[in-house]
Amino acid sequence: MLELLERDGLARICKFSVNNKEVETPTLMPVINPGKIVISPRDIYEKFKLKSIITNSYIIYNNNDLKEKALTQKLHKMLDYPGIIMTDSGTFQDHVYGNLELDPQKILDFQREIGADIGTILDIFTEPDFSREQALSAIEETARRGAQALKIKGNMKLAGTVQGSVYLDLREYAAQKMSALEFDYYPIGGVVPLLESYRYSDIVDILIASKLNLDPSKPVHLFGAGHPMFFAMSILLGVDFFDSSSYIKYARDNRFLFPDGTRELKDMKYVPYYSPVLDKYEVSELAQMPYDDRVKLIAEHNLFISVEELNRVKTAIFEQSIWEYVEERSRSHPALYSALKTLKKYQEKLERFENLSRKHAYFYTSIESLNRPVIYRLDKRIRSEFQNEKTVVVLNQENIDKMKQYIETANATFLVHTPFGFIPYQLMSIYPILQSSFPDYPDKIDNLKHIMDSWDLDTLISRLKNPDDPIGDEFITEHKKDLDIEKIRAIVDYQFGKYSSNALFNGPVKIVKSKNTGMIRTVFLDDKHILSMRNDGFFTLKYEAGKLLHAYFKYPKLRIAVSKDSAEFNMLGKNVFARFVVDMDPDLIPYDEVLIVDPDDNYIGVGRTFMNKTEALKFKKGMVAEVRETNKK
Amino acid sequence: MLELLERDGLARICKFSVNNKEVETPTLMPVINPGKIVISPRDIYEKFKLKSIITNSYIIYNNNDLKEKALTQKLHKMLDYPGIIMTDSGTFQDHVYGNLELDPQKILDFQREIGADIGTILDIFTEPDFSREQALSAIEETARRGAQALKIKGNMKLAGTVQGSVYLDLREYAAQKMSALEFDYYPIGGVVPLLESYRYSDIVDILIASKLNLDPSKPVHLFGAGHPMFFAMSILLGVDFFDSSSYIKYARDNRFLFPDGTRELKDMKYVPYYSPVLDKYEVSELAQMPYDDRVKLIAEHNLFISVEELNRVKTAIFEQSIWEYVEERSRSHPALYSALKTLKKYQEKLERFENLSRKHAYFYTSIESLNRPVIYRLDKRIRSEFQNEKTVVVLNQENIDKMKQYIETANATFLVHTPFGFIPYQLMSIYPILQSSFPDYPDKIDNLKHIMDSWDLDTLISRLKNPDDPIGDEFITEHKKDLDIEKIRAIVDYQFGKYSSNALFNGPVKIVKSKNTGMIRTVFLDDKHILSMRNDGFFTLKYEAGKLLHAYFKYPKLRIAVSKDSAEFNMLGKNVFARFVVDMDPDLIPYDEVLIVDPDDNYIGVGRTFMNKTEALKFKKGMVAEVRETNKK
Repeated sequence: MLELLERDGLARICKFSVNNKEVETPTLMPVINPGKIVISPRDIYEKFKLKSIITNSYIIYNNNDLKEKALTQKLHKMLDYPGIIMTDSGTFQDHVYGNLELDPQKILDFQREIGADIGTILDIFTEPDFSREQALSAIEETARRGAQALKIKGNMKLAGTVQGSVYLDLREYAAQKMSALEFDYYPIGGVVPLLESYRYSDIVDILIASKLNLDPSKPVHLFGAGHPMFFAMSILLGVDFFDSSSYIKYARDNRFLFPDGTRELKDMKYVPYYSPVLDKYEVSELAQMPYDDRVKLIAEHNLFISVEELNRVKTAIFEQSIWEYVEERSRSHPALYSALKTLKKYQEKLERFENLSRKHAYFYTSIESLNRPVIYRLDKRIRSEFQNEKTVVVLNQENIDKMKQYIETANATFLVHTPFGFIPYQLMSIYPILQSSFPDYPDKIDNLKHIMDSWDLDTLISRLKNPDDPIGDEFITEHKKDLDIEKIRAIVDYQFGKYSSNALFNGPVKIVKSKNTGMIRTVFLDDKHILSMRNDGFFTLKYEAGKLLHAYFKYPKLRIAVSKDSAEFNMLGKNVFARFVVDMDPDLIPYDEVLIVDPDDNYIGVGRTFMNKTEALKFKKGMVAEVRETNKK
Repeated sequence: MLELLERDGLARICKFSVNNKEVETPTLMPVINPGKIVISPRDIYEKFKLKSIITNSYIIYNNNDLKEKALTQKLHKMLDYPGIIMTDSGTFQDHVYGNLELDPQKILDFQREIGADIGTILDIFTEPDFSREQALSAIEETARRGAQALKIKGNMKLAGTVQGSVYLDLREYAAQKMSALEFDYYPIGGVVPLLESYRYSDIVDILIASKLNLDPSKPVHLFGAGHPMFFAMSILLGVDFFDSSSYIKYARDNRFLFPDGTRELKDMKYVPYYSPVLDKYEVSELAQMPYDDRVKLIAEHNLFISVEELNRVKTAIFEQSIWEYVEERSRSHPALYSALKTLKKYQEKLERFENLSRKHAYFYTSIESLNRPVIYRLDKRIRSEFQNEKTVVVLNQENIDKMKQYIETANATFLVHTPFGFIPYQLMSIYPILQSSFPDYPDKIDNLKHIMDSWDLDTLISRLKNPDDPIGDEFITEHKKDLDIEKIRAIVDYQFGKYSSNALFNGPVKIVKSKNTGMIRTVFLDDKHILSMRNDGFFTLKYEAGKLLHAYFKYPKLRIAVSKDSAEFNMLGKNVFARFVVDMDPDLIPYDEVLIVDPDDNYIGVGRTFMNKTEALKFKKGMVAEVRETNKK
């Protein structure tokens, strides 16, 4: 069972529990070969604090001693490991060593009998060079075996692997098919050959095709990915689990894993990232050590460094700066940079999972920073809000103050030229426009250009100064606009959708500003407090505002509908939990303001989402929305 | 005394020794306030392994107890610190607290009397908002005081600070002026206000203006820079020393330093970079600790993290990947990204210090990767070699093989379209062309375009197929070219300068290739082995080749001239050391092949440089060139 704790788009920190054992994800399951223990499972649990491991049921099954021991002692005792134990099925061995003629049912029975917490079906490994037909037939056979396995899994949780080679439509198909079968856990398989040849950008394609078609409430595991270089990118795309025999395999070749790549013992002198092993031993000492001792120490280094990279990625999720971190990490290798460039294609798909705003400012640190889904959203929402405007005047940020008289009186839309492109004057204070930091000379983008019949400031002023130009008539109006009202209308329309301002401001509006900063703080309608402005430039809805929006917009817009039972609790101010959600506006995104309603669309109160609809309907545990204000509270 | 150990352009690892104490640079001098010790100097030496510290003579001078103690015990005993102790003069305090009316001579005498290893003149701090006149007068007064100080410094080493506010010509002037006075050590002052306001790109300008006009054999210290975020960028530009009170100042505000920025205790949950403090204590424990205990622990964290970042930068220098590392680090903050973009201006200036090739492949990981000096060099040398060519045919990498017959017979220059731009066909195997890694879709640059009357492949083939087109006559020649000869001629001209091929191949040439790879390995002239090809695609000169180049090119081209005494040793194969160099070809760069000659230009042998001329004539210690082959060895 997965519970969402922190999120930054698809990247997430979760609590995963099985058989009363818990692990915080994203995490790494070290691969344990019970026949050749290098670092003991007990050390992995206590020293490295890794609460889940993976071992291979096929290897145990094929060794009479191990088999006997596993059947009598069961896995947890045999390995002396109190955490979550997953077993793999032999698929990968079949891929490496060729037709092993394994029996899918026998290997599944065996996993269950030896007490695996999570077992894995014997799926068919899809090679990158498979034909479409081969890949499709592997998917079908995998699904057939999966369906069989689900019948005999008993209490064991079951992992159903998503295959499909490099055919993205097949990956989508496989993900949908496996998702429909309702496995407990979804590994993404067939990627090791791609990882080995640095085809990270292909893996991005595969991850998107798979992840977005899987049940979001189930863990996703990238099978065979054990190099910390690729953790951040995978986690950005929603991966929760990695497994790794890399820590040992690389150690056997005297190779040290680092977050920016691999280093060979013979080439090392300085130590770029701390590890207890390289703190205790000089590189030269390690070189002279007996082989087995050295392998163990390098394996320990590799595991430590992998955990450290996971901690860095978790920090980034917690701080909601996963995009910044991935953009930084992607400078370690051209193949990672390729993968970063590939993300551009998926802005629209990722935007549905993207938080409304973030804890910290938007940092622009390369041209690729413009490919983040939040920029796609900005552009999309501005286009939809302003696409019918005809006369557009472009301002530079420097001359906004000088232009105030025209802005107040002109019958035109004013756009400000910012490093994000052209932004409506009224929206200059929302995230990420105001909450951003750019280099001295950012790369300018020109969005919205095609919808405009645009004048720049100089054109405007020269025309206004020319008595023969008819512009005065069409441009300057008698009526002086209330810029604050214009601003809150624009923000509300941006945040809650077109016409929201009509819903909210249908009476006398009073705006209260901060005495110190002059910034808008609260908005009253008919002397009732309806909106409060946050640091991210967006509004928090008060109960009364929710009521107005509820009355104005038809179901399900802006709503999350909860069961009758839940409604009674939510009315008292308790948060909305996953299994009580019956429906939700599909346009709501994480951290949106939301109206909570009962199944008959009776209005209960306002809150803030933590999930989008796809997620809310699937998760069985955890909070979907925070309830802020109801009639009763 | 500074000795160069490893280098990557201006970035360098050196051994700095004073009074029989040694420190490896780049390093950090923690600031010690003798009145308020937070981490003991002994711990700094033993636990943090930092072999130099800085303390403030003005603070000691102004406190009767400390003054008395310092004069009687001397600094090393008083602070219980066996490493190098530098003293600052009170300039910064004067800057912070206003006119303190310090006496430059008294404060210098005092530093000497208390036993500082390195003392600092009382220079005039130049604020970023100084007028030119103010900045210039500060420089003049600083130089005047410096000249006085040099007379009374005794055995103490003396630091002469480079000031100049943000006026780059004044920074250049100050650096030249202070350099001419021959101080032992060069701090760059007046940058703290710029660091505090994240004006990193201004600091890049200042560093270049200062560093390139200072004696390269003296240490450069960036005064007041203590945040690890900016270490890599400064070191790229030749900074050797940092000092920091930041580790304590930030700790007092509950702020943790990290290589990617600062984090406040209250915002922290996960730990992105290991430190012993955050390994031992939970963030919540630290929050509840008594203030002084917490400050000490955060200060320890800050120092540890700073040292770790220095280790990462040293690794990058050792691995000759400082540019890759700086480009990655620059994604941590838009101000760092600004500074990275600023570097583009200085490609030409930096190229003189840039190694001929590197240990590892060139990694392209952003559009900024094209701003590295090695790309500037590539472009410059190719232009100079091919600018007179008239008919140019552009090949794609994919169709080189198909075109072989035309390449062999055509009276034209063939350029290959690579992600580096257009590269002559013959140079495709040199660094960084072959030794490079690009993303799937690199940003293409079109160098050389303006010098070409260019045909692409399709044009060429269609013209060749048309019997009425006169191209056959002008294009296809009877003579079939020897492509291997063309290739070694082009490489030699690129590596040693135009006409080098005439010097080297003035007789029957034999090329030996690897049986396995088909790559050129060695070149013989008149059955004498003259060249060996390295992995970087360049040639190593044999003794006989050096002799040919020596005979062909006039002094000082390709030469390093050593004293008579040295010549005798070098003849026996001993390396060339700094204080014996009397002259050098100013066009030689680090890791170039070089001819060693005596003062009368008698040819001694061939070797490989480690420094350029500016450096070779200034350094007093360390190797300038490795001698590989002489007449006697």
